[in-house]
Amino acid sequence: MPTIKRLFIANRGEIAVRIIRTARALGIETVLGVSQADRDSLGARLATRAVVLGPAPSRESYLRVGTVIEAAKGTGCDAIHPGYGFLSENRELAQACAEEGLIFIGPSPDNLSAVGDKLTARTHALAAGVPVVPGGTVKTAEDASALAETIGFPLLIKAVAGGGGKGMKRVDDAAALPAQLDLAMAEAEAAFADARVYLERFVTVGRHVEVQILADGTTILHAGERDCSVQRRYQKVVEEAPAPDLPDALRQGLLEAAVRYARHIGYRSLGTVEFLVDVPRGEFYFLEMNARVQVEHPVTEAITGLDLIALQIAIAEGKPLPLTQDDIRLSGHALECRLNAEDPARDFMPSPGRVTQAWFPPVPGLRVDTHMQPGAMIPPYYDSMVAKLITWGATRDEAIARMLTALDVCVLEGVTTNAPLHRAILSDPAFRAGGVDTNFLGALLPTLGGRS
Amino acid sequence: MPTIKRLFIANRGEIAVRIIRTARALGIETVLGVSQADRDSLGARLATRAVVLGPAPSRESYLRVGTVIEAAKGTGCDAIHPGYGFLSENRELAQACAEEGLIFIGPSPDNLSAVGDKLTARTHALAAGVPVVPGGTVKTAEDASALAETIGFPLLIKAVAGGGGKGMKRVDDAAALPAQLDLAMAEAEAAFADARVYLERFVTVGRHVEVQILADGTTILHAGERDCSVQRRYQKVVEEAPAPDLPDALRQGLLEAAVRYARHIGYRSLGTVEFLVDVPRGEFYFLEMNARVQVEHPVTEAITGLDLIALQIAIAEGKPLPLTQDDIRLSGHALECRLNAEDPARDFMPSPGRVTQAWFPPVPGLRVDTHMQPGAMIPPYYDSMVAKLITWGATRDEAIARMLTALDVCVLEGVTTNAPLHRAILSDPAFRAGGVDTNFLGALLPTLGGRS
Repeated sequence: MPTIKRLFIANRGEIAVRIIRTARALGIETVLGVSQADRDSLGARLATRAVVLGPAPSRESYLRVGTVIEAAKGTGCDAIHPGYGFLSENRELAQACAEEGLIFIGPSPDNLSAVGDKLTARTHALAAGVPVVPGGTVKTAEDASALAETIGFPLLIKAVAGGGGKGMKRVDDAAALPAQLDLAMAEAEAAFADARVYLERFVTVGRHVEVQILADGTTILHAGERDCSVQRRYQKVVEEAPAPDLPDALRQGLLEAAVRYARHIGYRSLGTVEFLVDVPRGEFYFLEMNARVQVEHPVTEAITGLDLIALQIAIAEGKPLPLTQDDIRLSGHALECRLNAEDPARDFMPSPGRVTQAWFPPVPGLRVDTHMQPGAMIPPYYDSMVAKLITWGATRDEAIARMLTALDVCVLEGVTTNAPLHRAILSDPAFRAGGVDTNFLGALLPTLGGRS
Repeated sequence: MPTIKRLFIANRGEIAVRIIRTARALGIETVLGVSQADRDSLGARLATRAVVLGPAPSRESYLRVGTVIEAAKGTGCDAIHPGYGFLSENRELAQACAEEGLIFIGPSPDNLSAVGDKLTARTHALAAGVPVVPGGTVKTAEDASALAETIGFPLLIKAVAGGGGKGMKRVDDAAALPAQLDLAMAEAEAAFADARVYLERFVTVGRHVEVQILADGTTILHAGERDCSVQRRYQKVVEEAPAPDLPDALRQGLLEAAVRYARHIGYRSLGTVEFLVDVPRGEFYFLEMNARVQVEHPVTEAITGLDLIALQIAIAEGKPLPLTQDDIRLSGHALECRLNAEDPARDFMPSPGRVTQAWFPPVPGLRVDTHMQPGAMIPPYYDSMVAKLITWGATRDEAIARMLTALDVCVLEGVTTNAPLHRAILSDPAFRAGGVDTNFLGALLPTLGGRS
């Protein structure tokens, strides 16, 4: 029996709907806090109740800690699920929950501090014996030049408070460094009100592999890894599990490092440790830990049979994990394609509007996480993801074949989507061979022309 | 590559949508023939094109052979899929397709004759060495009395041209026989324009078990059996595969008898051989062969991984079956609940209307075949089934648990459904133990009171 009786969901879109699904299965009532633009969304209709947090812009609704807390208390909720993005890794919200007697479905404020600041996170990784990309913090152009000599080029400038690629700059030589540094600091200040940046070696041939962590405060388990190397401008586009064509020793090293890192910081919740993997050299580097459910969590659910949201809720309720590492058996292969309302032919411009038809039929092995229905509105204020198509297969080839079928069979009319881009990715020989790096999509895009 | 380029679908509801799904996956265009009442249905929106056959009553649209043929030819189709019900086992349509050069997705006219007349079907069964329920044809009350003496009471009067329980009467003693015979003949005449009836022993403790047949003209395979004993007034409500708690020898006997029957009549297509099984006596009796896709085909798909519609199309195209009996491996257990827009609390009165909200989320192991969407209209003219919930589990218990979760999680608002009845069935100790007979639901219903 869940301790939680009524759950406040401080999010929107497909993840709000996803959380409602598990809450219904657990017999937990839901209250969804929505912006004025999302009043008629699927999540608002499905939740036991919906309350308006404020106007459409996120800063006036989804990002307001005080409003979220008041709304949760005012509707008699005993817990808050923050989803991903928005306030999901916000220390202030976790702290306010603790003070107000609400269960925060996530880690402790201290955990959030340990992983939220990228420099602190690096320090913890080093202390836990987890390798990090060579680099360090810089304040001036002089600092930067000196550090760059030891790191080498190309390098990345990253915002300490960063995320989502904001404030991130690639620098290919010493001459370009001062100007890019200024730009990165200005962007970081604008995006995060925190101009601090640091330099990191740019690993030119790297794969993005991340490990799913489950930690109840005593036991720390992993649920395998995910490969999220197919990215465009640091945004994941296709994810899969397990990581294809990864040497066993390297895979084992990653899994153990992730558990070691989580143990070192005393992590307790669902979380993900991200790595950059240099397969030819057999090396990997800690990137960061995400202290929330990941967009791509369904590929892990597909190969493990777990309900990660249910486990996340159980941990937040103080329950011990109901399984051991040996109980987590990986079976087959899973892919996720993020279907975005955007136009790949027009440089991925968002394509908001009203959906006239939506049909995601039961193709074998297909799961669809979406908030789309006929008549659904896609407001221009938020990210453009409209559905996640997840396919499972006994083999990777089968999962790919099923995804291609799903892309042909599913219908989403009224908005332009990146479905053609997904078809191109899944049909590409390098992708089909498995193990592409993060440069793959950037190199593929110019070759697609009108097709993408 | 399919031979068929454009497929005419002469049906409606969930099965039209189901056929469109496989056609899309195969790259086949679809034309859906609809009644005026179904112009805005999901099938009409999803098909490549929809054409109106006529007014809402089936006799003026879905049952008009000439109109269907003309519509298929006029829209450039090269094949017709009849779905189930309506014209699916109509010899005239199959014959007209042959004459007009259209591929009929079903068996030959001769096959349809062999299985369509229940008396002929009985004769074939006896010739194939497949046991039938003791009985025979009768013309007068005197015939009936004489035959009844050898059969014994209770017995059933059935229409030779029958189906769906029409013209069927149970008779418990000799005194009631003449009046029931008159009634049955009158009903048969009204429903089928054919007053012929026959008597059959009423097997009081029997289970309805049927075998899925795949036949390409040379090879005849079975895809296991389904148990459809949970019936109300001869209408299936819950189906499952495999049949639970069935002795292996009996199961093997059924499977072999079904293949033997199909071989005897030279069957070529997808089909189902239905049996009445007397488990305590270790006996089974041939009931009939259905020469079409069955409503409950998804439970077989769930435990075999096959796409039965795709195989049915391939056979109709003249292709050999792409698999052997050994390739058909059964895995786990599957259930189907027929969700009907009807009110169990008001003697299952149909409950037509407009659906205000429909949500069938990706519960693990759940498949939903439906034509429902927000705004969908349920017209009063047709059967009341609005969705089939199918769950798969590694064990029967898991499939049942997942179905209970699905019933709690899924949302269908605006119409009253029999979801509470399904909850009651799935929670019943006898059903959970497995192997209930066809009397189960009739006995359960009066105990439910307001709950059902």
